[in-house]
Amino acid sequence: MRLHWLLAGLMSAALWTAPPAVRAQTPPSAATPAATEIVEKRSFELAGHTLRNGTTLPTLRIGYQTAGTLNAAGDNAVLVAHFFSGNSHAFGRYAADQPPGYWDAIVGPGRAIDTNRYFVVSSDTLVNLNVRDGRTVTTGPVSMNPATGRHWGTDFPVVSMRDFIEVQKKLLDSLGVRRLALVTGPSMGALQAIEWAAAYPEMIDRVMPVIGGGEIDPWMLNWLDIWEAPIRLDPNWRGGDYYAQGREPPVAGLAAALKIVTVHAQDRPALARFGRAIPDGQDPARRLADRFEAERAIDEAAMARARMSDANHFLYLTRANQLFLNEYPSTEAALARSRARWLVVASPTDRVFLMEANRDLLATLQRVGRPAELAEVTGPLGHLNGVVGMAPLAERIRAFLAAN
Amino acid sequence: MRLHWLLAGLMSAALWTAPPAVRAQTPPSAATPAATEIVEKRSFELAGHTLRNGTTLPTLRIGYQTAGTLNAAGDNAVLVAHFFSGNSHAFGRYAADQPPGYWDAIVGPGRAIDTNRYFVVSSDTLVNLNVRDGRTVTTGPVSMNPATGRHWGTDFPVVSMRDFIEVQKKLLDSLGVRRLALVTGPSMGALQAIEWAAAYPEMIDRVMPVIGGGEIDPWMLNWLDIWEAPIRLDPNWRGGDYYAQGREPPVAGLAAALKIVTVHAQDRPALARFGRAIPDGQDPARRLADRFEAERAIDEAAMARARMSDANHFLYLTRANQLFLNEYPSTEAALARSRARWLVVASPTDRVFLMEANRDLLATLQRVGRPAELAEVTGPLGHLNGVVGMAPLAERIRAFLAAN
Repeated sequence: MRLHWLLAGLMSAALWTAPPAVRAQTPPSAATPAATEIVEKRSFELAGHTLRNGTTLPTLRIGYQTAGTLNAAGDNAVLVAHFFSGNSHAFGRYAADQPPGYWDAIVGPGRAIDTNRYFVVSSDTLVNLNVRDGRTVTTGPVSMNPATGRHWGTDFPVVSMRDFIEVQKKLLDSLGVRRLALVTGPSMGALQAIEWAAAYPEMIDRVMPVIGGGEIDPWMLNWLDIWEAPIRLDPNWRGGDYYAQGREPPVAGLAAALKIVTVHAQDRPALARFGRAIPDGQDPARRLADRFEAERAIDEAAMARARMSDANHFLYLTRANQLFLNEYPSTEAALARSRARWLVVASPTDRVFLMEANRDLLATLQRVGRPAELAEVTGPLGHLNGVVGMAPLAERIRAFLAAN
Repeated sequence: MRLHWLLAGLMSAALWTAPPAVRAQTPPSAATPAATEIVEKRSFELAGHTLRNGTTLPTLRIGYQTAGTLNAAGDNAVLVAHFFSGNSHAFGRYAADQPPGYWDAIVGPGRAIDTNRYFVVSSDTLVNLNVRDGRTVTTGPVSMNPATGRHWGTDFPVVSMRDFIEVQKKLLDSLGVRRLALVTGPSMGALQAIEWAAAYPEMIDRVMPVIGGGEIDPWMLNWLDIWEAPIRLDPNWRGGDYYAQGREPPVAGLAAALKIVTVHAQDRPALARFGRAIPDGQDPARRLADRFEAERAIDEAAMARARMSDANHFLYLTRANQLFLNEYPSTEAALARSRARWLVVASPTDRVFLMEANRDLLATLQRVGRPAELAEVTGPLGHLNGVVGMAPLAERIRAFLAAN
């Protein structure tokens, strides 16, 4: 029970805490300081970037952070891609009194992904959910369209998972990275790692998809659609046109969407502490509008989260997930391009990316002749074991990085 | 692949087909005709029924059907309770050219639950979802409130799972049933079977909960809330007050809710046939509003289903599920009351009532000293294996019924 509380607390730190509104905007540079637990949030800009669907974005900005030092050959880099509701804060602290990144247990000086040895990069995606948290730097529907001087809204072009990779590639180029010793990430980060392996096979030594899967199949396509459905039903959404002064954003729909993600990403034990308690003054057995404490608590957390986020960004982000590997005829065709070694990490109690889906990914990798192994990340948190419960995998990751 | 199609077809028959608008309303009678595959839908009425929360319903009607003949001792009865989106049509056909009930493979003359031997009863619940299908007989928010001459709407009292049992008990009393050789049902039917075992332990010989679980824990409380959230967000819901002439019912929200149930109740292989196909004229990589065929197909099925249903009934039904075993301090305290033998049937790929939850149920039964075994129902349909894939369990059920 103590462990549940601890992990739930860590999860809260990773998922629910909005960092203070301090945004560092130093220019990008390959000469980052030696590894330390304090990291700096930076911003990377592109002008005239053409997306995979042919649309050109006049300007584009994403945030990123690094740790460790790139070597002269530019081949000791590691890229960590973030999960659906995450951002670049995978490791380090922005200040001594602030919480660490979600994978800080496995990324840092002397840790499994050792920043004394590797130059580790993590960036915010396009259309990032945390657009209003004051630290995330992203470009999406909330951003200003320079052509109109107004928020893009749903005029923003559709972006795919592959687009995330293309922007990261240009970021890595700007930092002088020539090879990735490892590309990894949890959940949507795993999908990005797989897209990387297919898009730039010649520059990747190792791939570690964590709590992901090799396919967004019809069941997952529909789950992503279920996640976003509450937003489209909220009358304040107005087809995405809610940025004008005096209009309320669809925060109720967005909170309902974030609630689905929150519950789906956990497992039964993670919520057990609520029991079947009923808040004071509530009586669900007599009044339809009354609620159990378990519902109220998750609603409250989801609403707090919704206020840091944006409904249109949620819709664009689910679409980017639906478009995973959309340029390949099949997962097998995509994976056949890889030249890397693979470590697939899966949570047996994952309710989003099922264990079976991870076994399918492993089987496909083996079928196309890639060296690939499967490791399990366990704990009471279901899917989120792969976000906040990775510490026990440290030795396995270390061995994976040492193997050639 | 052929098997997937076949089971998907059966599932469609069980879940999506609205029977023709013919409602049989012959009076109840214990002297049903000898077992035959043709069954008749009947109606059972109560006046002045007091619910468990103390509210009295002035009138109440539910539909039911029977097969087989009750013996003189009244102790050869079997009660089959239906799933969330089901009704009494568990077995038999209403006419030779109409589809069979969802458990027809295991209920009928010579089958595992042998209607040559047992008197089998199945009834519609209160607040049933299929209130507009023309065959379901139920009482809920859509019903007329005799005190006002208008639809009850959200003035209808909250009902619990235990209330379903109390109405069924009065139905069984009216039919002359004194003992249940077996109480069973899939999913919400399993919850009803467990409520029965705790409420009337002295009259039950055997309990077979199928694809259920012994607890609506905080994770499930939230999932049920997620199921219904789209209804509350639909502006046409209006707090439940949408029955007046000229008002549109919240069919979009209800369809979104039914879509969640549909996808949740299946597993990846059940939808695999859609692949990542894109309907003609749609382009999800370029237009945010465009969709994949897998989404379109499930949306269409859910919308067809929504037109036969009612949004307020959905809200009341989820609440009844949340109130499962709400009169007991714990599942263990409820199960300790049982005097029956138990066969717990679970689907290893169930994404609603997890296999782990069924193992917990088995462990609790064994802890309180009940003879209990676990059987698996397998297939490509996840949760729905227990609705339309029960045929392979026939011998196991037969043996369970033969044991004393």
